[in-house]
Amino acid sequence: MAKSPQPTRVTDRKRRIDGERSRSAILDAAAQLATVEGIGGLSLSRLAGEVGMSKSGLFAHFGSKEELQLATVDRANELFDDQVLEPALTAPTGLERLQGLAERYLRYVEAETFRGGCFFATVLTEVDMQPGPVRDRLVRFLGDWLGQLEGAVRDAQGEGAIDAAEDPAQLAFEIEAALFLANAQFVVARGPEPIRRAERAINRRLAEATTGAA
Amino acid sequence: MAKSPQPTRVTDRKRRIDGERSRSAILDAAAQLATVEGIGGLSLSRLAGEVGMSKSGLFAHFGSKEELQLATVDRANELFDDQVLEPALTAPTGLERLQGLAERYLRYVEAETFRGGCFFATVLTEVDMQPGPVRDRLVRFLGDWLGQLEGAVRDAQGEGAIDAAEDPAQLAFEIEAALFLANAQFVVARGPEPIRRAERAINRRLAEATTGAA
Repeated sequence: MAKSPQPTRVTDRKRRIDGERSRSAILDAAAQLATVEGIGGLSLSRLAGEVGMSKSGLFAHFGSKEELQLATVDRANELFDDQVLEPALTAPTGLERLQGLAERYLRYVEAETFRGGCFFATVLTEVDMQPGPVRDRLVRFLGDWLGQLEGAVRDAQGEGAIDAAEDPAQLAFEIEAALFLANAQFVVARGPEPIRRAERAINRRLAEATTGAA
Repeated sequence: MAKSPQPTRVTDRKRRIDGERSRSAILDAAAQLATVEGIGGLSLSRLAGEVGMSKSGLFAHFGSKEELQLATVDRANELFDDQVLEPALTAPTGLERLQGLAERYLRYVEAETFRGGCFFATVLTEVDMQPGPVRDRLVRFLGDWLGQLEGAVRDAQGEGAIDAAEDPAQLAFEIEAALFLANAQFVVARGPEPIRRAERAINRRLAEATTGAA
């Protein structure tokens, strides 16, 4: 086949898309690996072996281990937003958003989105005693997540669906507790039981908190 | 520079330190370190630096990294038994034992018994994807712990203090969920709030489960 000249901007564009694809493929592998072996073990050389690239090839994408770790957290955050936050937050009422956040989280765990369980639960437990930008980013993620649960409770209270006497932060804590333990037990047991237990716990708690007005 | 003979007192001091470091003192340091840097990083050379012993001195106590890790888990288990299980299990009724297990666990977390939070929560999250004897021992610990909570619920039901309609495993899950999240949040925030939230969650749940007959 004869070579035809290709417009430069198309070649550049293709190269850029290829580059973005390989960057996100690398980060998907990195996020999986972080839930199995820890984000601390996520060196460029370890990951190079996993994705079949040279260490220098990886260096073209990420200048340092810390940059790689931070990009991995961001990639995991994108996946979490896609699978949990965004679909849950489209619901029209606060109570439905609250239920949706819990349900979507449990689906995300049960679907084994990450081989070693929820990325954020696993990795924050690993780095919680290691000050630095990776820990900071994970702590911010956790604060945002609890803020979403609490915000949905407040909205539901504003809509008259959840008793105004409930402390939103306390109710968010109790829902998150069931989700957090479900994830930890699912990773160990790989069966549906902890997921079902969390559902029962949350349904029961919400049945008490709802006024039946909505 | 002329070599001077090493002062005898330095040699003596080193010998005394080596001699005084009991096996359990080494393991206390190992257990602390495991909650901060992970049990995977608990090599003999890393621990030698931490306790000021030679690597060969540590080898006299533990033949391999895995032996050291298993002995560390056992030592953490002893501490847990002393601080949580044994005092809680002296209570005369099932309901008091259940409340005691939860209260003692929260005290053990709040007292920072381990620098990086509950040894078992932290280390099992680290090794849950790494099959082997360390993971096996931690999974057994967790099963025993949940069994204690569930057994106390059953005893309380037998004594008429907790509603017979409650599923003991479900109630144990819900109590453990609050304890587990309290530990994780305490490690990050280092304030009493998560401990108080767990207490409120458990008190509320037990108020519902108790028949008031006891």
